[in-house]
Amino acid sequence: MPKYRLDIAYEGTHFFGWQIQPHDISIQGTIEKALTTLLRAKTRLIGSARTDAGVHALGQVAHFVSDALLNTVKILYSLNALLPPSIRILRMQEVSEEFHAQYSATKKEYHYHVWLDPISDPFLYPYRYHVHTPLSLPLLREAATLFVGTHDFASFANVGSHVKTTTRTLYRLDIVEERGGIRFECEGNGFLYKMVRNIVGTLLEFGAQKRDLKELVPLFERRKRAAGGMAAPPHALFLIRVEYPSCEQKRDDEKKDGLFL
Amino acid sequence: MPKYRLDIAYEGTHFFGWQIQPHDISIQGTIEKALTTLLRAKTRLIGSARTDAGVHALGQVAHFVSDALLNTVKILYSLNALLPPSIRILRMQEVSEEFHAQYSATKKEYHYHVWLDPISDPFLYPYRYHVHTPLSLPLLREAATLFVGTHDFASFANVGSHVKTTTRTLYRLDIVEERGGIRFECEGNGFLYKMVRNIVGTLLEFGAQKRDLKELVPLFERRKRAAGGMAAPPHALFLIRVEYPSCEQKRDDEKKDGLFL
Repeated sequence: MPKYRLDIAYEGTHFFGWQIQPHDISIQGTIEKALTTLLRAKTRLIGSARTDAGVHALGQVAHFVSDALLNTVKILYSLNALLPPSIRILRMQEVSEEFHAQYSATKKEYHYHVWLDPISDPFLYPYRYHVHTPLSLPLLREAATLFVGTHDFASFANVGSHVKTTTRTLYRLDIVEERGGIRFECEGNGFLYKMVRNIVGTLLEFGAQKRDLKELVPLFERRKRAAGGMAAPPHALFLIRVEYPSCEQKRDDEKKDGLFL
Repeated sequence: MPKYRLDIAYEGTHFFGWQIQPHDISIQGTIEKALTTLLRAKTRLIGSARTDAGVHALGQVAHFVSDALLNTVKILYSLNALLPPSIRILRMQEVSEEFHAQYSATKKEYHYHVWLDPISDPFLYPYRYHVHTPLSLPLLREAATLFVGTHDFASFANVGSHVKTTTRTLYRLDIVEERGGIRFECEGNGFLYKMVRNIVGTLLEFGAQKRDLKELVPLFERRKRAAGGMAAPPHALFLIRVEYPSCEQKRDDEKKDGLFL
């Protein structure tokens, strides 16, 4: 059966996250409903990542199978016409049978935006975590380097998803200065439940000198969520892109960051 | 009595425009209420421009007088604490008695954003006018040059404000390509009621070749609003900045465009 990949951007403020919910409006559920209407057949959509309620995406990836061979140009157009403007299908392409949005993904990139200016921005405040405590950028960066690499991230994973292992590899955790504040750019081979928000929340405690850097390695070793810092709120988190082995990628991913800001 | 200048940014979606309204929430009314609470004295705020319902501002300017000499740093902070996050006071400074936010203004700059990509952006759609008709950029630019200079803009002014003359000078009307579409950048010594939106709406008719360029000069000459094109909708219009003679400007206006986008 033909298999299709969708690249999706969404403004997550008014959704209860990606994953379909029995009583609440989810992004997955909203797109599945539109696909089911359009294709006149119950269609299941598999996403690469289950973003939480309030989290946004510029480059979420999902796949679905269909009985029929579809005109991707027409379906893309019709899907966007059916969907609310807060969800946009950026492109649609046929993929090989082996492609799986979740299991084939080799790398994901998240950005987390922290606002530090005392005056917030009337347009950006829904997408920024406004931190009022002074932060030490050198301390933040020093702490961030300790997260990069292959580690057991159990202290930074909330219970809630069934995983075989809590070991993951972070390829990159950069802190970039941007207008009004800083952005955490995080790339890894996979992320546990609330892992990015827990890492950012913990880093902010080190950056604000509420914890000493010496506590960080023992914190990893305790392998208990209670050891980590508070989760940073969801509204400032963006799933930027998901990468796949090039054989399953029919087009190069353009730099997605330009889509917003 | 001491006089103060406020530089203000606002997300206008949920306001019935700048000007105070008897029953609806306006930006002027919201700030006046906060000032009155804070200063414990009925305070009137005079703005440089009465932006319409739904129009946004990155650099609106207003002034008010106070009985007391105010600590501008404290008042700026307290005002922002009282105001909704969709209105931000960017700075506050004492100005000379002669300063008048409306009458002293020498130049205003507005931007109007038109989205042309068939796929809208889930974050920017509230701030873009999505045009589905193909537009000729050279035609748009040729038509735009005919607006620049000193003209009687009666054909582009809605009735609704009392003005002595409908003659205004446009210093600049540029069409700049930006991600997803184009931006009209409009600078002038003053603008009549709905003038920017009427100009943009008319230009779009010429750019879409619904009207011939030969019709444009006669259109000015008819001096009747009915002659002009449809007003473009308000949600894509931004008041970018207002300029004053340098003697009344205590600090240079930094480029405001970076505030958003």
